[in-house]
Amino acid sequence: MKNILIIGIGKSTSYLIDYLSRKAESRAITITVGDINTDNLKALQDSYGNINGIPLDIFDREQREDAVKNADLIISMLPARFHVQVARDCIAYGKHLVTASYVSEEMQALDAEVREKGLVFMNEIGLDPGIDHMSAMHVIDRIRDKGGKMLLFESFCGGLVAPESDTNLWNYKFTWNPRNVVVAGQGGAAKFIQEGTYKYIPYHKLFRRTEFLDVDGYGEFEGYANRDSLKYRKAYGLEDALTLYRGTMRRVGFSRAWNMFVQLGMTDDSYVMDDTENMSYRDFVNAFLPYSPTDSVELKMRHYLKIDQDDIMWEKLEELGLFSAERKVGLKDATPAQILQKILEESWSLEENDKDMIVMYHKFGYELDGKKSQIDASMVVIGEDRKFTAMAKTVGLPVAMAALQILEGKINTPGVQIPIRREVYTPILKELEEQGVIFREKEGAYTGYDLHNVVG
Amino acid sequence: MKNILIIGIGKSTSYLIDYLSRKAESRAITITVGDINTDNLKALQDSYGNINGIPLDIFDREQREDAVKNADLIISMLPARFHVQVARDCIAYGKHLVTASYVSEEMQALDAEVREKGLVFMNEIGLDPGIDHMSAMHVIDRIRDKGGKMLLFESFCGGLVAPESDTNLWNYKFTWNPRNVVVAGQGGAAKFIQEGTYKYIPYHKLFRRTEFLDVDGYGEFEGYANRDSLKYRKAYGLEDALTLYRGTMRRVGFSRAWNMFVQLGMTDDSYVMDDTENMSYRDFVNAFLPYSPTDSVELKMRHYLKIDQDDIMWEKLEELGLFSAERKVGLKDATPAQILQKILEESWSLEENDKDMIVMYHKFGYELDGKKSQIDASMVVIGEDRKFTAMAKTVGLPVAMAALQILEGKINTPGVQIPIRREVYTPILKELEEQGVIFREKEGAYTGYDLHNVVG
Repeated sequence: MKNILIIGIGKSTSYLIDYLSRKAESRAITITVGDINTDNLKALQDSYGNINGIPLDIFDREQREDAVKNADLIISMLPARFHVQVARDCIAYGKHLVTASYVSEEMQALDAEVREKGLVFMNEIGLDPGIDHMSAMHVIDRIRDKGGKMLLFESFCGGLVAPESDTNLWNYKFTWNPRNVVVAGQGGAAKFIQEGTYKYIPYHKLFRRTEFLDVDGYGEFEGYANRDSLKYRKAYGLEDALTLYRGTMRRVGFSRAWNMFVQLGMTDDSYVMDDTENMSYRDFVNAFLPYSPTDSVELKMRHYLKIDQDDIMWEKLEELGLFSAERKVGLKDATPAQILQKILEESWSLEENDKDMIVMYHKFGYELDGKKSQIDASMVVIGEDRKFTAMAKTVGLPVAMAALQILEGKINTPGVQIPIRREVYTPILKELEEQGVIFREKEGAYTGYDLHNVVG
Repeated sequence: MKNILIIGIGKSTSYLIDYLSRKAESRAITITVGDINTDNLKALQDSYGNINGIPLDIFDREQREDAVKNADLIISMLPARFHVQVARDCIAYGKHLVTASYVSEEMQALDAEVREKGLVFMNEIGLDPGIDHMSAMHVIDRIRDKGGKMLLFESFCGGLVAPESDTNLWNYKFTWNPRNVVVAGQGGAAKFIQEGTYKYIPYHKLFRRTEFLDVDGYGEFEGYANRDSLKYRKAYGLEDALTLYRGTMRRVGFSRAWNMFVQLGMTDDSYVMDDTENMSYRDFVNAFLPYSPTDSVELKMRHYLKIDQDDIMWEKLEELGLFSAERKVGLKDATPAQILQKILEESWSLEENDKDMIVMYHKFGYELDGKKSQIDASMVVIGEDRKFTAMAKTVGLPVAMAALQILEGKINTPGVQIPIRREVYTPILKELEEQGVIFREKEGAYTGYDLHNVVG
């Protein structure tokens, strides 16, 4: 019997724990879950007879080291900044580690020690990052195996609401951390390459430079650029590709409407506004509009953002109750972004029976035997309910699967890793398919960077 | 005889040194100038027989302390971050200090020690900050002396090119640090109060929310908001005023055109672009525009910024040579802001005989005996040439005048000061008038925040 320790119970652990619990007997593992909240542990043990729960405060060194010592592999589902402490313990006691988080500089710095001890520290093996790496490399390696040369790689992912639960004009609900959605795209210009030319989009233009994507059976989506599309250029071996673009997917029309908040300055998280506790939603809006003794907040808003009388954008704003003089912000010393988040959460939270939806879309352009072709691969996963979400499924399952493969010695390249090697993605993508996480491919003529799908 | 030590020769010291040199005999002072550059010192001594030049490296403690020891008052014209070291020496040896820079936190922290020693550390006594403080408090105190209550204070200042040297479509040339102009307004939302309501403008809207100002004999100007209009609210005693707004003046049309750079992302100083050394101006522009295999950079630009065929904005861009494929950036690892600065410097530098112009404009709204009134006060100073600039005059003369007043014990309130007290502004404004720095006042009906002067 091998022991797996999972640290941290959260939104993304429902499928992870469920999957491992079901596999415990056949794969000969025991599962221990450590969390600081004993209520969480109790609920978990009530649901699963074969899960051992232990109170675990990761700032308590002895507790943490004891827990690590008794396991063969640790899955850290803690916030990313806490992984490194666990990672150091794993090195000290010779344990494997799996996380769904980006490899931090501190984590990368452990690589030599991890290799030396023959351990596998697998990171970025959730959804995005995670399934994106695996599904992309799966196709890229296949193209290269045939002798093809990569010309273009575009990759999009979005956490959205399922069509059957899509009940607002924005076609959007929060399925993950709302704060990340509100400040998305901030902190610097978005950078990518189009047909050999570096392109830069400042934040205030980001939501006006979208691309359209069509997913069979699910209709049209749009994508806006992530901050750094070149991040995995080297890891994927795409140094010579002419187009590299990574983006976030939304339903068509979301970005144009979101841009209103950006233009007003409502997504700014860098300063605290005055007297936010007693501020009404209407006051909040008015703080970003010019003063006028005669005009209403509504008229000033229409004029400032140039919203026509019959533009659906206006209904989107009204749906949020933005112009209400009665509804109060009620937050002390809040930034515009915090206030906007609060207002949006009132409209965009998942209802008890709402289902979320994960969409991923890759475009691969390549040249083979003098002919240019393109593969479009897309994946859609619908959640079951507010707990067993598509997000939790697509983040948690690859983590669980990787953990088992590492324990069984099938994934065994030592060091600080991300899932771009065949030994990783081949078995995991196959098992994900069995669980309903399926990529559908379409092969066609190379369109290059498709101008007609771009809004200038 | 009292000794004045001036540290640092630069763009803003021409009038300062000239004025003190002329006053040396009648006011019984000797003048020593310390600078690290001995050529500068020699040139100065060739021009002025009564100036003593000493080589001074402010990082050489002994040299610095010796120089301070031998003086009665030190004028530091160093970059602002170096003042504090000089200030500590001044405390140690019991010397007065004058600077034209903003009071830093470190400087403010010295206040108790400075008071204890009975010294005067006068800061912010240049143009802006400086003449703005003095001319504003002069009127505010007068209104209060009569029993008036301040309702509104707006204050604008700009360093521009004189009408006779105004030879480009932007009606602008660099008369000071070009870098400050390129990154002006960045780093957070502009904040002010209009008729009792706090207002916030994000950077990407800053240059579209201008106010118009008319100066008799000099025509129309526009102003855009400074980052913090509330900075001197308490110092000026304006806690109850309904409108507080501080802004930067430009010729009408500048801000609308400058906004093109902001919208494109060309003023961003937070990241380095790729291969900037070999980049042409045209490549630079294209990096911010969507990819198109068929359209020219010009067409993409017109479309992206919605510039009509007959819009003067277009000629403004062309005047800068922005679309040239021949002209190269030639800077290594440069940010967009650094590249834009280089391009603008080629078009906007002062010619040998060009004259600069300083414009300042205050609006004071008040209530007296139940009646609301308004005073508009404006000042225009034209420079003589590229060395004796209006900027150097308006920065340097108040510094020099304050130094003499402090030495003669007429300005004598001890501590870390800014020039908002009558004992300071009364004699200095009077002497500035004699030197041609004159505010012209117009009294009229209170317009409040004048809607018709505002571009929404």
